[in-house]
Amino acid sequence: MKRKLFRRRAARKAVGEVPGTLHVDPEAPKPVVRVMTYGPDACEERQVDDPKALREILHTTPVVWVNVDGLGDAEILTAIGEAFDLHPLALEDIVNVPQRAKVEQYGENLFIITRMASLGEHLETEQVSLFLGRDFVLTFQEHAGDCLEPVRERIRKGMGRIRRAGADYLAYALLDAVVYGYFPVLEQYGEHLEALEEQVIARPDNTTIARIHRAKRDLLTLRRAIWPQRETISALTREEAEQISDPTRVYLRDCYDHVVQIIDMVETYREIASGLLDAYQSSVSNRMNEVMKVLTIIATIFIPLGFLAGIWGMNFNPEKRPLNMPLTQWSFGYPFALALMVGIAATMLVFFWRKGWLGSSAPSEQRTPADR
Amino acid sequence: MKRKLFRRRAARKAVGEVPGTLHVDPEAPKPVVRVMTYGPDACEERQVDDPKALREILHTTPVVWVNVDGLGDAEILTAIGEAFDLHPLALEDIVNVPQRAKVEQYGENLFIITRMASLGEHLETEQVSLFLGRDFVLTFQEHAGDCLEPVRERIRKGMGRIRRAGADYLAYALLDAVVYGYFPVLEQYGEHLEALEEQVIARPDNTTIARIHRAKRDLLTLRRAIWPQRETISALTREEAEQISDPTRVYLRDCYDHVVQIIDMVETYREIASGLLDAYQSSVSNRMNEVMKVLTIIATIFIPLGFLAGIWGMNFNPEKRPLNMPLTQWSFGYPFALALMVGIAATMLVFFWRKGWLGSSAPSEQRTPADR
Amino acid sequence: MKRKLFRRRAARKAVGEVPGTLHVDPEAPKPVVRVMTYGPDACEERQVDDPKALREILHTTPVVWVNVDGLGDAEILTAIGEAFDLHPLALEDIVNVPQRAKVEQYGENLFIITRMASLGEHLETEQVSLFLGRDFVLTFQEHAGDCLEPVRERIRKGMGRIRRAGADYLAYALLDAVVYGYFPVLEQYGEHLEALEEQVIARPDNTTIARIHRAKRDLLTLRRAIWPQRETISALTREEAEQISDPTRVYLRDCYDHVVQIIDMVETYREIASGLLDAYQSSVSNRMNEVMKVLTIIATIFIPLGFLAGIWGMNFNPEKRPLNMPLTQWSFGYPFALALMVGIAATMLVFFWRKGWLGSSAPSEQRTPADR
Amino acid sequence: MKRKLFRRRAARKAVGEVPGTLHVDPEAPKPVVRVMTYGPDACEERQVDDPKALREILHTTPVVWVNVDGLGDAEILTAIGEAFDLHPLALEDIVNVPQRAKVEQYGENLFIITRMASLGEHLETEQVSLFLGRDFVLTFQEHAGDCLEPVRERIRKGMGRIRRAGADYLAYALLDAVVYGYFPVLEQYGEHLEALEEQVIARPDNTTIARIHRAKRDLLTLRRAIWPQRETISALTREEAEQISDPTRVYLRDCYDHVVQIIDMVETYREIASGLLDAYQSSVSNRMNEVMKVLTIIATIFIPLGFLAGIWGMNFNPEKRPLNMPLTQWSFGYPFALALMVGIAATMLVFFWRKGWLGSSAPSEQRTPADR
Amino acid sequence: MKRKLFRRRAARKAVGEVPGTLHVDPEAPKPVVRVMTYGPDACEERQVDDPKALREILHTTPVVWVNVDGLGDAEILTAIGEAFDLHPLALEDIVNVPQRAKVEQYGENLFIITRMASLGEHLETEQVSLFLGRDFVLTFQEHAGDCLEPVRERIRKGMGRIRRAGADYLAYALLDAVVYGYFPVLEQYGEHLEALEEQVIARPDNTTIARIHRAKRDLLTLRRAIWPQRETISALTREEAEQISDPTRVYLRDCYDHVVQIIDMVETYREIASGLLDAYQSSVSNRMNEVMKVLTIIATIFIPLGFLAGIWGMNFNPEKRPLNMPLTQWSFGYPFALALMVGIAATMLVFFWRKGWLGSSAPSEQRTPADR
Repeated sequence: MKRKLFRRRAARKAVGEVPGTLHVDPEAPKPVVRVMTYGPDACEERQVDDPKALREILHTTPVVWVNVDGLGDAEILTAIGEAFDLHPLALEDIVNVPQRAKVEQYGENLFIITRMASLGEHLETEQVSLFLGRDFVLTFQEHAGDCLEPVRERIRKGMGRIRRAGADYLAYALLDAVVYGYFPVLEQYGEHLEALEEQVIARPDNTTIARIHRAKRDLLTLRRAIWPQRETISALTREEAEQISDPTRVYLRDCYDHVVQIIDMVETYREIASGLLDAYQSSVSNRMNEVMKVLTIIATIFIPLGFLAGIWGMNFNPEKRPLNMPLTQWSFGYPFALALMVGIAATMLVFFWRKGWLGSSAPSEQRTPADR
Repeated sequence: MKRKLFRRRAARKAVGEVPGTLHVDPEAPKPVVRVMTYGPDACEERQVDDPKALREILHTTPVVWVNVDGLGDAEILTAIGEAFDLHPLALEDIVNVPQRAKVEQYGENLFIITRMASLGEHLETEQVSLFLGRDFVLTFQEHAGDCLEPVRERIRKGMGRIRRAGADYLAYALLDAVVYGYFPVLEQYGEHLEALEEQVIARPDNTTIARIHRAKRDLLTLRRAIWPQRETISALTREEAEQISDPTRVYLRDCYDHVVQIIDMVETYREIASGLLDAYQSSVSNRMNEVMKVLTIIATIFIPLGFLAGIWGMNFNPEKRPLNMPLTQWSFGYPFALALMVGIAATMLVFFWRKGWLGSSAPSEQRTPADR
Repeated sequence: MKRKLFRRRAARKAVGEVPGTLHVDPEAPKPVVRVMTYGPDACEERQVDDPKALREILHTTPVVWVNVDGLGDAEILTAIGEAFDLHPLALEDIVNVPQRAKVEQYGENLFIITRMASLGEHLETEQVSLFLGRDFVLTFQEHAGDCLEPVRERIRKGMGRIRRAGADYLAYALLDAVVYGYFPVLEQYGEHLEALEEQVIARPDNTTIARIHRAKRDLLTLRRAIWPQRETISALTREEAEQISDPTRVYLRDCYDHVVQIIDMVETYREIASGLLDAYQSSVSNRMNEVMKVLTIIATIFIPLGFLAGIWGMNFNPEKRPLNMPLTQWSFGYPFALALMVGIAATMLVFFWRKGWLGSSAPSEQRTPADR
Repeated sequence: MKRKLFRRRAARKAVGEVPGTLHVDPEAPKPVVRVMTYGPDACEERQVDDPKALREILHTTPVVWVNVDGLGDAEILTAIGEAFDLHPLALEDIVNVPQRAKVEQYGENLFIITRMASLGEHLETEQVSLFLGRDFVLTFQEHAGDCLEPVRERIRKGMGRIRRAGADYLAYALLDAVVYGYFPVLEQYGEHLEALEEQVIARPDNTTIARIHRAKRDLLTLRRAIWPQRETISALTREEAEQISDPTRVYLRDCYDHVVQIIDMVETYREIASGLLDAYQSSVSNRMNEVMKVLTIIATIFIPLGFLAGIWGMNFNPEKRPLNMPLTQWSFGYPFALALMVGIAATMLVFFWRKGWLGSSAPSEQRTPADR
Repeated sequence: MKRKLFRRRAARKAVGEVPGTLHVDPEAPKPVVRVMTYGPDACEERQVDDPKALREILHTTPVVWVNVDGLGDAEILTAIGEAFDLHPLALEDIVNVPQRAKVEQYGENLFIITRMASLGEHLETEQVSLFLGRDFVLTFQEHAGDCLEPVRERIRKGMGRIRRAGADYLAYALLDAVVYGYFPVLEQYGEHLEALEEQVIARPDNTTIARIHRAKRDLLTLRRAIWPQRETISALTREEAEQISDPTRVYLRDCYDHVVQIIDMVETYREIASGLLDAYQSSVSNRMNEVMKVLTIIATIFIPLGFLAGIWGMNFNPEKRPLNMPLTQWSFGYPFALALMVGIAATMLVFFWRKGWLGSSAPSEQRTPADR
């Protein structure tokens, strides 16, 4: 499958259209609405088919978490928007992916956009939109994904303080799950860079440059995804809104530390990748230099000698003395000369092959398909 | 048609001239004044030939939108300026394109300069100047363009809240249309970069560098155009002037998000373009290296052998033994030798051609005119 | 005439000397003091030889503009300083060129240093120092130059509001004239870069790199000259001193816009020049690559063939069959062979010449003296 | 032992897990708790096996310093945490290394994370976590290391004011010891860069690029470690908490100066390393250029001559005159020619060897294992 | 004498040692204490051997300037510290060179560290530490240097207002002398860069890169030295301490302007040096390209011709016609052919020599020792 360089908005609204209009990507999966209602003592999960039913579920338990997977149906999304009194612009931001991470106050609710990263065959980032009300959290994901599953599990099993805490703690837990998901992705890039570094120093080949380039581009994508989240989480720790309680703020400060650490890693990896490019170019020009020198030395030695041979035409008179061109008068002179030449050529080929000057393309061809 | 690198002010005023003097580019199209008067219930469009008539139209309906296409007549522009009591310096900024995007308070009116981008044969940017009064919007465009047409359509059809809202919402709608117009342009550059990336990795040729360079320059132009708009829109969301109402401010915040997103894309594309240049140079030097190595190996193998051949003069005595230089005594020796040589040369040419070492210039010549 | 890379202070004071000592460059032109006294109704110009006479001229008309061209006489300058009660450090800054642009409050007067740019044979920048008092403006220029002449003309002819306005408006008009003078200079660099760009892509030669380098250095000089002016003009628009009236502040805001626009252009041109350097290097290495490939292909084809020819010694026996080396037995064989060789060499030379591989140095030599 | 590019968290908690869970690296050394209780007059050291005993030791002397070496046992760490009422998130940060340096207020205690650097076989950084209470300091180190030993020595011997000062001074002394430890490390990098510089200018070889690359990466690691400490120490000098007394603040200001100086050195070394890379590449391409020129000159001189020799076939008729090809008729012509050729080849090899064009790989191979 | 890349602290204190301990570099010169006491009417200079005597000299005249040259004796320095009640940390900063420039308040005194630059054989920077009290200035220099001599001269001769002003003006005069000393150093670098630029464009050789590299490193050193001084002087102009009077503040503002100008020059020179590196690399690769092309053209022309010559073996039969290979039958054919070859080789050598392709190493060797 061909890989796309940039993700394009499948259904961007036209220029000058009425703001707040929903343009749904026809290929996006249909929304599936799952509700989790819980309090310190109980926890219930159900799937809701009619968004209008959501109004009745709200405010029945200390915390209600409504999760919508898939953004492929404008009607259902509008109905959900109405059930929660969402502003049309917010709804547009949810559908019109990708948006930058941000936090905005809409009436009594906080609207948070964040972005999660996952590394399957390629690096993928997915927008997670989140509404935090007094006693509910409403999340939208592009695809049904299990990134938030561990949080669900914690609620089910009542692990930690999540069941006893309010909606703000749930929002924190979700944001932290999203942010924490960058670590395994980055660690894979760390290993990838380590492998590339070894390759650059030891035996750079044709694919190296493409792989460094791709790593750089992926890191750029991660950078674009994570930087705005710093501001977002920082705003939440500062925000004087009543949605976030003080104990949760301590946890958000921890989450903020994670974001800063991720940014730190991304920037470091980017610098390392740039350094690899420099090292690669030096390494390549170094090898070229070495190859060059062998050519120069062999050529500059043999060209003048060849000229001398040419000047005499090597027409030494064997009749004057048998010492003059003895081989040419020998019965097996010609076969012997040919064999000598083949032997020299073979020796040189073996020498070049052991130096790694041959076959540079062969291993690279092999490696390409296996490359991530 | 030759493309200009930098747009020059056709009629820049001389150094030290009286500020506020209008210098009109004689080649600019003549101004065409079109007025749109509307309220919740009605909407009327007309063309106005005498700018003095504008005074009477003002304040007759909740919102009056006067649009001037073309900046080619100082008299008409001055007359419009008088009809609206515009400051001479503002009028000078309108005519003396290009200006940076900015927002300024002139008496009771807000004066906003913005810049739209369009991608025809080349990237074009055009200045849109906008006056926002209590109940009117006055816009100036360099050319009659349809970038604002969708807004006109929304007014005509009464779509959304535009007819019910005031002049400030109209100003927002126009600014958002201008800003939103960058997305399709940028998406084309995204596709262009994607194509270039493939080309760089797979088969870089002569035109690649020129195309990357051009993409970089266009992105630089976009950057210059969009960066000051961030400040402009941000000032409008903050501005405590009475021209902008609070609900419109929410929409402007959305527009600000668009600007930030565009800046984000431009910067990302610029980094990608720079990365492409690096990758291109590595790719080219890599290929050169490979070509080099083939030369080295073939030359270093055959030069010493040739020397050996020269040393013996290959004057082996065929009379001593028929094994010595048998071919030279053969009836068809010479034609056979020539045929063998032609065969080897042809084989090598085919090999080089399949390696893509030949014909690099030919396709590039072909591609150049077809290039955007 | 040899061009100096850096302008050196002709007469820098020694380390540790008494601050405020004037060290005059002996080669600097002698000061010429010209006074312009004007009000709404009258305007008079005269040349003043004795600086002491200045005291009597001051305060006689609404505005007095004293202009000093040339900084070559410490006594006269000191006398002027005394006539206006200038601080010794300010006087030192006037003489000890070049200084960075700045604005400082000295007692009741504003002391403004600015820098103008002009493009004759080379880029030149010149310091203009300006004292703004309640009813006078005192300017110092390094050389008699006509950059401020248009302002003088406006005063003489009473164009615009300059005669009706006060000394602060005159100061603005002078500053704006200085700032506006950067535009024509920059436009020439724009055209120069455009020409260079064409040259880089189409046919880079020896002088290209030197020309790009020079353009970059000139832009660096412009950057150094214009950046501090931003701060200077910005300080004037903010300054709460009584010297600047509110209506003039509006004009200074316009002047500030010009400075920002110039900075924008300079930075853009610098980026373009850097991009040109990259493009140039890619272009050159690209061409080298192409040249390389031709060498490789021709050499790798003919070297093995030559070896084969050497191996047989081409001693085919023509006596066995006339087909063996027929030409050698032909009467005109040798002249024909020589002619063939000359023909091939000529064809190749023509081919190389049309490829532009020959004569690269010749045109560059020609271009150098004609170069700006 | 293979060297790892990036240190990985041995036991990172899973995504979405309950915050505050301790995941201990099974390979980490077991914690060893050592307590130092001292006042102006006495000083006692002991090892504590049961963390619960710590509660009884606290508040018995003016200052209690509890040091934990090794983070390899969750139970003991949790017990220590309980003994000191540590927040679970702080405890998680202690265990979940590496964290960025930071300072946080937890109740009455200050929680400080810092990072020390040491240079054994490779550059190592280690996290030191520190709790500062009213009369105690609690430190956690990853490994038993002697970096804090000199402070212990000062306490034992009562050197300086440490015994008379409070816990805040102890915290300062520990932080300063950690910070000061960067100086010897950086000085070694300074010497390393000096050696590399000499090598780059004089005789760059294969390993140079890898060594510069490694130095750059180590400096990047140091930069990541030291930058956040600046903010940390700065926060401590500003902090209005009661933990830090005013006299200690003066010492912390000194410590802050050290951090700034270290940052200064790191940044300078990074610039120097980058400069070395540039210089290296120029140096290599310079040498290649020189090698190239020798090849060009020898080849371009001998190729046409060789052609001429070929054209005549050197079949000059010795019978016409003995001057024609005299050597070929000489009895020892052939041996003499061969000897001459061997002599020329040997001379050239010696020349190349003295130029340093041969054997570039040999010394580099030798140097690699000895390289740090 | 070998030049050190980085200056190392000769006697850095060990990690974790008691702060405030003095570690004196045993090779540093012994301190020489010279006292200058002056007022408007009198001025006396004397050398003081016993630091204890300083107490009695203090407060006897309006201003007392105690200057200490050399930091090589801990006892004397401690005694001076006691005489002036200096804080141990300040004393440590004085001895433990190099420190960054800074200003700190210690009790009633201001403690200022600054750094002067001088250009002898190499660029040298030296720390000057300064204590400013109500009526005294205490300065410490690493070596006896004449950088402050002009100030001493001004005091002796009563030039300017220095004798009438207080200790703050003396401190200003000293700081300005230190700062002003950068100008001649920078002007020498300006000339050096100018010479390098000419060399880069006209005839880059082996040493060019090393010289640019060295200039860049020296500019980096200057940058490190001057940047912190900006902050230092700026703090002094702002500082609300009673040590600095308002008239002196005006002079310090002038000194601040000098620092800003120096920073401006350093940054410009750094950019120019970087530009030179780029230009150098382009220039070198350009020349290589040209050399390459000559090789290609000569080789590609003669290799096929040589092949043709080989193919015929040039065994044309002179017996068929005298036109066939006439020279070979001529009596002086062989000597003529040899002479022709020598002639061609000599012509080419002369051509290459005039092109500057030979002897590139010779002049560079010559230049190296003469290089600064």
